[in-house]
Amino acid sequence: MTLNDALTKLTDLETTLRYYSHALGCLNYDGETVAPRNSAPMRGETMAFLSGILHEKVTAEETGEMLDTLLAHRDELSLKDRRRAEVLKDQRDDLTLVPADEFMAYQQLMAEAMQVWHDAKLASDYAAYAPYLDRIIAYNRRFAARKNPDRPAYDVLLDGYEKGLSHETLDPFFALLRRELTPVILEVAKRPRPDTAFLNQPYPIHLQKRFTDRVMEIMGISRDDCAVGETEHPFTDGFNKHDVRITTHYHEDAVLSNLFSVVHEGGHALYELGIGDDLQGTVLAGGSSMSVHESQSRFYENIIGRSRPFCEVLLPELKALFPDQLSGVDAEKLYRAANLSEPSLIRTEADELTYSIHVMIRYELEKAMIAGDLKTGDIPGEWNRMYREYLGITVPDDRRGCLQDSHWSFGAIGYFPSYALGSAYGVQMLHNMEKDIDVWGAVRSGSLKPITAWLGEKIHRFGQLLTPKELAERGMGGPFDPNCYVQYLKKKYGELYHL
Amino acid sequence: MTLNDALTKLTDLETTLRYYSHALGCLNYDGETVAPRNSAPMRGETMAFLSGILHEKVTAEETGEMLDTLLAHRDELSLKDRRRAEVLKDQRDDLTLVPADEFMAYQQLMAEAMQVWHDAKLASDYAAYAPYLDRIIAYNRRFAARKNPDRPAYDVLLDGYEKGLSHETLDPFFALLRRELTPVILEVAKRPRPDTAFLNQPYPIHLQKRFTDRVMEIMGISRDDCAVGETEHPFTDGFNKHDVRITTHYHEDAVLSNLFSVVHEGGHALYELGIGDDLQGTVLAGGSSMSVHESQSRFYENIIGRSRPFCEVLLPELKALFPDQLSGVDAEKLYRAANLSEPSLIRTEADELTYSIHVMIRYELEKAMIAGDLKTGDIPGEWNRMYREYLGITVPDDRRGCLQDSHWSFGAIGYFPSYALGSAYGVQMLHNMEKDIDVWGAVRSGSLKPITAWLGEKIHRFGQLLTPKELAERGMGGPFDPNCYVQYLKKKYGELYHL
Repeated sequence: MTLNDALTKLTDLETTLRYYSHALGCLNYDGETVAPRNSAPMRGETMAFLSGILHEKVTAEETGEMLDTLLAHRDELSLKDRRRAEVLKDQRDDLTLVPADEFMAYQQLMAEAMQVWHDAKLASDYAAYAPYLDRIIAYNRRFAARKNPDRPAYDVLLDGYEKGLSHETLDPFFALLRRELTPVILEVAKRPRPDTAFLNQPYPIHLQKRFTDRVMEIMGISRDDCAVGETEHPFTDGFNKHDVRITTHYHEDAVLSNLFSVVHEGGHALYELGIGDDLQGTVLAGGSSMSVHESQSRFYENIIGRSRPFCEVLLPELKALFPDQLSGVDAEKLYRAANLSEPSLIRTEADELTYSIHVMIRYELEKAMIAGDLKTGDIPGEWNRMYREYLGITVPDDRRGCLQDSHWSFGAIGYFPSYALGSAYGVQMLHNMEKDIDVWGAVRSGSLKPITAWLGEKIHRFGQLLTPKELAERGMGGPFDPNCYVQYLKKKYGELYHL
Repeated sequence: MTLNDALTKLTDLETTLRYYSHALGCLNYDGETVAPRNSAPMRGETMAFLSGILHEKVTAEETGEMLDTLLAHRDELSLKDRRRAEVLKDQRDDLTLVPADEFMAYQQLMAEAMQVWHDAKLASDYAAYAPYLDRIIAYNRRFAARKNPDRPAYDVLLDGYEKGLSHETLDPFFALLRRELTPVILEVAKRPRPDTAFLNQPYPIHLQKRFTDRVMEIMGISRDDCAVGETEHPFTDGFNKHDVRITTHYHEDAVLSNLFSVVHEGGHALYELGIGDDLQGTVLAGGSSMSVHESQSRFYENIIGRSRPFCEVLLPELKALFPDQLSGVDAEKLYRAANLSEPSLIRTEADELTYSIHVMIRYELEKAMIAGDLKTGDIPGEWNRMYREYLGITVPDDRRGCLQDSHWSFGAIGYFPSYALGSAYGVQMLHNMEKDIDVWGAVRSGSLKPITAWLGEKIHRFGQLLTPKELAERGMGGPFDPNCYVQYLKKKYGELYHL
């Protein structure tokens, strides 16, 4: 096969993969958002079938030859073509480890597990979900053992979310957070609780939806390219740069919950929307890694979204929609309420200070499950024990405990650490960004566009052209230093709680 | 090929077609409901690609051999197997007339035309839409000429929606309606207009959504099998009997609009939900023809939905949600308002008496377009002229004129007559149903289940196992007689308007 033939075949394959991935993505999004409950089994069958075709195309001998040809000429390739081949080669290596039948069965299992998880969460019925989780864990352990029997299985899975990531980075990272943040959490608990009574009123959902529209405008996200749906658990999907979807969840008695969901998912959306035109249609047209993705969403949600200037911008918008509920509330009061720190049950609702502890608990549980040291039947007990030990609170039911997150139901084991890593990356990104632009002036002006432009230039436009490590360092202006994150949290909460 | 081999191949092909159709249906539904505006071109590409594969599978030589084998043994086959082969043969014959490239280009055209139509309607910009309509008409003319060059092209298209239907049935049908109904419409116009002022108030959309929930309950449609979405133009999609979707459109100042959209689309949904389990997964698992489908939706919308007993059931439900707006309104007043008859602009909002005139206008326009006697540039003028001539009203803009319906944008030319035929079938269905069950007792009890059960037994469960003609006759208890429809309308409106 000549190099030119291989490049043509690469483009053809990418095109085919794009079509099947789009169909699969659409079926999945439909299932997560609007499909009726009983549609899950048939959707699972269709998704398994289409995944089987994807598997067949990627693992085909011809694809192997094409990739071998490309990588044998790696020095003659442009950076873009080389990365296209490398990224596809990684995908192929992974898929080749799993026979088509097994892969299809796993896709169907996940489609069904998503529905089962959803129902189980609503009913707080862990027993209904456990058999599915068992099979998902078994699949992931088997996969990891095939991929690299010499490494801890959980490290192999982590590597799938961020190349090179392992317990050797994460154990000390979480140990640092636990060591440095626990005393702060304990101190904060002794201080007067900020007044949040004004949030404990009904904020009608149809008005919250109008507020979502305004938040999207402030973030500079065009609804022509990005839709907003509703799900039990908010998430973002990007099919291409003109077709991104975020979801949120409206609670009448928690107006800030929707706000920060939209800002968080909006951060993911801006990443997908900012991927370079030159990468569209290639395997590089997606976020680089989950940590880099979460660095964007957590940056917008917390560093920008929970800042004083952003609260100043939002307050008049909120008052226009909810004048009675917010009568007498000023920006400082909103800022303090938005940054209330206290041990709580739900990760996605947690404040910045306690957030990483939620992630650490999931990290420890996943590591133990995948190592075979923790059976699924023991997860609720262990979950609740760790929430008592690390956050000092009692989990009243599994709905607000180990059933709260959807991730395991779609096979995402090894994903959670990305949230904490991404949060930490964000602080270094801020420091780096502040060297170039007037971050807070932009926020105060009511448009985040200069911030998004900076991130677009440093990170978004590259898609998967650069490695996660390269991208994170471009954003952060240097290597990862978790102490920056710790210092940021100590300073912010020190000031908030007069520590 | 042995008969057994052919039957196995038939099942295999049906399974594959089901998966691709499901993906295509999902992409289409997503595009119609929640996808962001700019996603249309890429979705069009994906849909063209997947349609190309469907085309390839159905037109494959192997499929031809399989169908020839089955139909050579037609007398040995069960009714179900024979019909599966016949229905697939019809699909294959049609697809074979269009080369794959042309077919795929047409699929992409329709996906884009849908978005263009949507934007053009909102902007009342017919010129933006006309080039797309031109190409859709050209495709349909070319297709019809290939299929049967000896028949009028429009008859060939009609035959695609209901086998055997042609202008020879429809010309006298519409002539009868025009002749018999026009004098009634003129008489009604002279009578006092019922009081509808209570409808001209804001009915908040979030409350209308709760009313939708109640209507679905009364109709006996489980949300676990049928979702409700929102679109500019309401429609129904059925992927399988556990995955049906209806859509509606909420207008704050038109509470009855949503009501009758839901009841209409609910009628379609009940048909799809009632298709026999034994047909699931086969090509027979769908509605029999558009007329039969519309006979169900129009029956629920008008004969049931706009009846006195149904208004009696709905009023307390409405009053619970809208006590101020409906203060002093009794069931008789609601009934008269729901049956207000007057020449109007919008087909989907039209009363039963004038409705068929709206359909007739589209029928005449389509016939002329496909015959080549009417250019797309002349449609707005001709549309407006006919609305003046037949309904005596002036069309203020194309948004409320020739851009109001989505049908042409998805290639449905020859579909509109189904609405009038279906409406007429419904009256005979009612007479036949009344022989077996207490129709109005069921309505008064607040549950339509006995009615749906009767329709399920007579029509729904058969899917495409019987021909549209056989099914319509089962429902009607005999051959079609359009005079029944005319008599029903004269009696209903005679009583309403004291003619």
